[in-house]
Amino acid sequence: MKCVIIANGDFEYTNDIARVIADAQLIICADGGAGHLKALNILPHVMIGDFDSVHPNDKQFFKEQNVKTLPFPSRKNQTDSELCVSYALENNATDITLLGVTGTRLDHTLGNIFLLKKLARQNIPARIINQHNQIHMVTAFIELKGQPGDLLSVIPITEKATGVTLTGLEYPLTNAAMEMGSSLGISNCFKETTATVSIKKGILIVTKSKD
Amino acid sequence: MKCVIIANGDFEYTNDIARVIADAQLIICADGGAGHLKALNILPHVMIGDFDSVHPNDKQFFKEQNVKTLPFPSRKNQTDSELCVSYALENNATDITLLGVTGTRLDHTLGNIFLLKKLARQNIPARIINQHNQIHMVTAFIELKGQPGDLLSVIPITEKATGVTLTGLEYPLTNAAMEMGSSLGISNCFKETTATVSIKKGILIVTKSKD
Repeated sequence: MKCVIIANGDFEYTNDIARVIADAQLIICADGGAGHLKALNILPHVMIGDFDSVHPNDKQFFKEQNVKTLPFPSRKNQTDSELCVSYALENNATDITLLGVTGTRLDHTLGNIFLLKKLARQNIPARIINQHNQIHMVTAFIELKGQPGDLLSVIPITEKATGVTLTGLEYPLTNAAMEMGSSLGISNCFKETTATVSIKKGILIVTKSKD
Repeated sequence: MKCVIIANGDFEYTNDIARVIADAQLIICADGGAGHLKALNILPHVMIGDFDSVHPNDKQFFKEQNVKTLPFPSRKNQTDSELCVSYALENNATDITLLGVTGTRLDHTLGNIFLLKKLARQNIPARIINQHNQIHMVTAFIELKGQPGDLLSVIPITEKATGVTLTGLEYPLTNAAMEMGSSLGISNCFKETTATVSIKKGILIVTKSKD
């Protein structure tokens, strides 16, 4: 079951994002993310969080529409995003897209990117999408569609990443070793309309970005 | 020797950033970062990169001021930021601050954050500063100054981080274990004016952020 989680970070309603929301069977709203959905006149299935950032009018509006609300105390061990991910997993999500999870607060952005790691560990396909970037966590293989020239970067988040093979890109790699902190994999780009990234050992963040 | 590197990402001339630049004995400009310095009428000691993003007028201006220029081909294995870090290390920098290294391109932002890892491995104190965040990579201990209420987050970037102790914070920890992908350490905040983070095994990203 496809799930989309919308949080309170930067959010622009691009075609890609519209498609993701339209395709989702479970729409979860993290706290202030309610504002993004309200502006689009889209009802989430559930609102989760400590509700410190949602506008009271938005919360009230969704309550009146009988949207399920799961409140948590603000002194808690998980971010609202992580609570939403846990809810998604408990409700049998098999594919999760996170929206509105990037922005000026880089601690939140990073925390949300590393949430993908938790999902990768459980073999749940997941990604973060914003106006400029798609972010994927890859432990084995991913195939991405794009246009020649589209930017793709590969960033190891384990000390070493070995057996890294990149195809369909301007700078391919075959069975290469990369290490965390090297910028070797930044600013590669599509040479064809399909690119693949595979890795034998380690974990990669793979981004498709535009300026 | 204190070094500051200015790249082409988001840049706002805050008081903190002004102080960092004023304190630096080595100012390195990564490609389009030249524009940020030109606007402030500050001369770098050296300009490094493939010069695909610098405005030709800025490049020309600094050349006329006899700023050293180190050009690299655009087909290269390192980002301009990494080239600047290598130059800083070769020129005996003992403390490095990265500015203009965050922005909409999250692949660049992430690549630059992980560059801190490379520096941590060499015991070079280093950090990223932008308008909203300070980002540090901690392998042993860090002490940060702040005001009660200032946000501080602790994000493991190794599978496990053990022996994590946090003091001076609203939610202290003693000899705790954290794991990558858990949001436990996000949105802690200063309770006093000094906070410390220490870790026995693993690596943490520690951020001080404001909304």
